[in-house]
Amino acid sequence: MGDCVFCKISDGKIPREKVYEDEYFFSVPDANPQIKGHTLIISKKHYETILDLPKKLEGDLLNAIKETFEKLKKKFNSDGFNIIQNNFKSAGQIVGHLHFHILPRNTDDDYKILIKKR
Amino acid sequence: MGDCVFCKISDGKIPREKVYEDEYFFSVPDANPQIKGHTLIISKKHYETILDLPKKLEGDLLNAIKETFEKLKKKFNSDGFNIIQNNFKSAGQIVGHLHFHILPRNTDDDYKILIKKR
Repeated sequence: MGDCVFCKISDGKIPREKVYEDEYFFSVPDANPQIKGHTLIISKKHYETILDLPKKLEGDLLNAIKETFEKLKKKFNSDGFNIIQNNFKSAGQIVGHLHFHILPRNTDDDYKILIKKR
Repeated sequence: MGDCVFCKISDGKIPREKVYEDEYFFSVPDANPQIKGHTLIISKKHYETILDLPKKLEGDLLNAIKETFEKLKKKFNSDGFNIIQNNFKSAGQIVGHLHFHILPRNTDDDYKILIKKR
């Protein structure tokens, strides 16, 4: 879609370092990392939320998750990871183009995911 | 697995109200909800993390996510949702059996997901 920043990264109009890339998904470092190695997995095609992802791409999504974690595991010596995925504005989805936050974790990194009132 | 609490819920040894259920997945209210309607999608079979989920079940996973959100949407009048999924102990995975946290959200519910040092 014309003004979607993730579409522009997807089609190369905004050049970004890719952590991982295949036919349907790519991964890039989050522009505003919440944790060392915070990475986004983004669908190449514009889908708004996970509810719009075609079933035929799901095998590829799981593969993109595995491959992205493999890269992060090596780079950051991680032994775990969180996936956070927000759907619709009320859930804090800022860019309306399907993406998954991947947070590589290390034992004793002392981080915690909290759900809090603002 | 013998001492796994999610396996016991899966096979009915621990009875729990099901939000949704199909051949491969079921959803139950989280025993320690972080937000109204906090629900877990759990695989019926014991897989440790998302890395262990067979590709052939991903279509079913997406379906379970959609169906669970449909139920929560109606019950809590939600217009969005977050998925949080933790892999391995370092990522805060407490029960070593694949599960997805589904957090139904409402516009102006004032919740925020934070990644913080303890």
